[in-house]
Amino acid sequence: ERILVINCGSSSLKYTLFDTERPENTAHGHVERIDAEGTKLVQTSARGRVESDVKERGHAGAFKSMLAALAHESHGVLKSSSDITAVGHRVVHGGEKFTNAVVIDDQVVAEIEALAPLAPLHNPVNVLGIREARRVFPKVPHVAVFDTAFHATLPSHAYLYGLPYSYYEEKGVRRYGFHGSSHSYVALAAAQHLRRRARELRVISCHLGNGASICAIDHGRSVDTSMGFTPGEGLIMGTRCGDLDAGVTSFLERTEGMASKLIDDLLNKKSGLLGLSGISGDMREVEKAADAGDARALTALKTFCYRVRKYIGSYVAAMGGLDVVIFTAGIGQGSAGVRASALQGLACMGIKIDEGKNRLATGGKEISIISADDSPVKVLVVPTDEERMIARETLRVKSRDVLVSASEAC
Amino acid sequence: ERILVINCGSSSLKYTLFDTERPENTAHGHVERIDAEGTKLVQTSARGRVESDVKERGHAGAFKSMLAALAHESHGVLKSSSDITAVGHRVVHGGEKFTNAVVIDDQVVAEIEALAPLAPLHNPVNVLGIREARRVFPKVPHVAVFDTAFHATLPSHAYLYGLPYSYYEEKGVRRYGFHGSSHSYVALAAAQHLRRRARELRVISCHLGNGASICAIDHGRSVDTSMGFTPGEGLIMGTRCGDLDAGVTSFLERTEGMASKLIDDLLNKKSGLLGLSGISGDMREVEKAADAGDARALTALKTFCYRVRKYIGSYVAAMGGLDVVIFTAGIGQGSAGVRASALQGLACMGIKIDEGKNRLATGGKEISIISADDSPVKVLVVPTDEERMIARETLRVKSRDVLVSASEAC
Ligand SMILES: Nc1ncnc2c1ncn2[C@@H]1O[C@H](COP(=O)(O)OP(=O)(O)O)[C@@H](O)[C@H]1O
Ligand SMILES: Nc1ncnc2c1ncn2[C@@H]1O[C@H](COP(=O)(O)OP(=O)(O)O)[C@@H](O)[C@H]1O
Repeated sequence: ERILVINCGSSSLKYTLFDTERPENTAHGHVERIDAEGTKLVQTSARGRVESDVKERGHAGAFKSMLAALAHESHGVLKSSSDITAVGHRVVHGGEKFTNAVVIDDQVVAEIEALAPLAPLHNPVNVLGIREARRVFPKVPHVAVFDTAFHATLPSHAYLYGLPYSYYEEKGVRRYGFHGSSHSYVALAAAQHLRRRARELRVISCHLGNGASICAIDHGRSVDTSMGFTPGEGLIMGTRCGDLDAGVTSFLERTEGMASKLIDDLLNKKSGLLGLSGISGDMREVEKAADAGDARALTALKTFCYRVRKYIGSYVAAMGGLDVVIFTAGIGQGSAGVRASALQGLACMGIKIDEGKNRLATGGKEISIISADDSPVKVLVVPTDEERMIARETLRVKSRDVLVSASEAC
Repeated sequence: ERILVINCGSSSLKYTLFDTERPENTAHGHVERIDAEGTKLVQTSARGRVESDVKERGHAGAFKSMLAALAHESHGVLKSSSDITAVGHRVVHGGEKFTNAVVIDDQVVAEIEALAPLAPLHNPVNVLGIREARRVFPKVPHVAVFDTAFHATLPSHAYLYGLPYSYYEEKGVRRYGFHGSSHSYVALAAAQHLRRRARELRVISCHLGNGASICAIDHGRSVDTSMGFTPGEGLIMGTRCGDLDAGVTSFLERTEGMASKLIDDLLNKKSGLLGLSGISGDMREVEKAADAGDARALTALKTFCYRVRKYIGSYVAAMGGLDVVIFTAGIGQGSAGVRASALQGLACMGIKIDEGKNRLATGGKEISIISADDSPVKVLVVPTDEERMIARETLRVKSRDVLVSASEAC
């Protein structure tokens, strides 16, 4: 099988090709700043690096360049784009409708589109990508894999806000959670690494990237997660504020006359590490400045880590115990300092880190265990691979679909 | 000393008289629905019950009735209102200015008034009460005791939101916390009951009333608390939603065209237990309905308790351990079911409840220990007494003030 995984953003196209028979043919590519001047495509694989100018504007142009790069004469990984056997699409919001990955047909497209009010920035552009891909690959199955689906198992006491119940029933206001592919991937990978079954472990997974979320996975099922109705709730992120007293927004409207669009912008693009530090939303920059003695950068760092620590505590309480903590994504994999500070004082919950191992686990492709040998809770650094998870889901759904069609044909 | 404690609301006046020489003279009184038809005053004390019609409108009328009741011929507790030696005022918001109770002078009044943007519903009416009381008792010291002051010890990583730092510096947007007098009172009372010093304990205090908040008290100092910039953040309350994705408000504005005032109203008056259950914001009603099999009431109850549980976990993480959990206020003192459900699964943090003791501890005036004898963490039910704490603070500040004046006069 050759599975193409597509992650379509408003001004970017990211893709990964997986070849189940030839793992060395895995290729990653991205086109950034679609619609701007001088758009470029970059693709990397064991066969070499492809760089090309994207001539045609819009997502159609990006798709064309992708096809050309994949089948590139010397550095390509396919003979022809018709070698692709399935396409997996990352879709941000599946609402309550999609609790699992699905084969895409016209109705599914319409339903994803109908969820736009819940994810105005993401679902419409995901649909754009699906439409374009179905045009380009009309003969293969397309599968939608939702960021929210892994969290479909949340119990109502975890997904309900304290709002009138009708806001949940009629308007769908509830905690959905995101980063599902990442949380489920690393939880599975950690269990395998520990030679345990995911189904017998209580896991807390900390996905700390530009977007950051944390998830309680109880015997294989997501039971709580820090992102909520939107991906803005929970942890402090690169530029998003995370948890906030809802009274702050009405204060800003009342006293500053700020319009709600401006407030949205403030909370999502000017807050988080960037807002607190005043330096950058990039953790490496913040750490550098903190090391150099910048007080606000240090405060930003501490506030970030403290919030992770509190969430870990609350999820231990939610599950009534804990077996594994996982760190993943850029910051989780890259920053030993953040990991140590987030876990500080948690020996009372059975979490003991081995600082030597922690320092060594930075940026590699391997899974590392960073807890002390006698730590009741195992702590792991696990490189995330959302694309691989999407590819797996795509294959799983595709073969199930084939089975169903076959059995219906009998 | 005879200390009058005043809690002045927009349509109510509550007061308590403490007589340090004659504890039997303690009297509680309240005037509700000031400005409505047929306003009544009710006062209770060991000397009997006083009920009277409040003839004059407004807070001035309520104060007059209070004076008459306190010096009531047969059921009064004072010979004359001039017997009062100090007045303590509950003030909701002290901002960053007031980290301690203070003797009130004109400047203090002006400063409390200047904090109105932070507490538009409370501070102006608190000032009204102060003005009236100073007019009526011009010769005695008046002391302002702030709900926020106990939380002045929060470290910056606990009080900062993930917003641009200028919003904190210039506009005072931060976590303040409330219910300070209650949290500090019960923490002190619990330590005394356990014959320990507050200064050597890590305490989590759960104030569960119509308003509800939870506080981490590390060696006597508040280090985190669930109410934030406003008293609307944190736990699910009678009619307030508590923690909420800030994205929900912009969703409601965008898709429902709801104005921010309407949203404020929704989140503060129609949410919480009332909104979730659809029955009542009163926990007794919700429990009754849940017992009778009402599914939504049961969901409301579970969601309420689950959130308390998560906060307990996060504060154990914040303090790196725990010695004492306290339940107080109407629900905390009255509902064994809520206490048991909030602590469910927390044996992993050393919290073991004795269900028999828990069932017995309901509504009494005494402190009860409800943890199992072998529980590493002690769990206590402690009747709160914010008025007594305000009286104590009033005395403390008054005598300090006398000392300072005396030493300045030397
Ligand atoms: N070695 C490192 N140390 C600290 N932070 C790192 C390191 N490498 C990457 N990061 C941080 O990770 C974040 C990006 O994470 P990533 O998972 O790539 O984000 P995204 O959510 O966009 O996928 C940035 O804040 C970056 O500074
Ligand atoms: N025995 C009880 N069982 C359960 N809930 C109770 C009990 N007694 C009082 N309550 C609840 O306590 C809440 C009021 O608490 P209280 O501390 O009086 O509120 P306030 O915050 O107004 O001071 C109400 O929800 C009420 O139903």
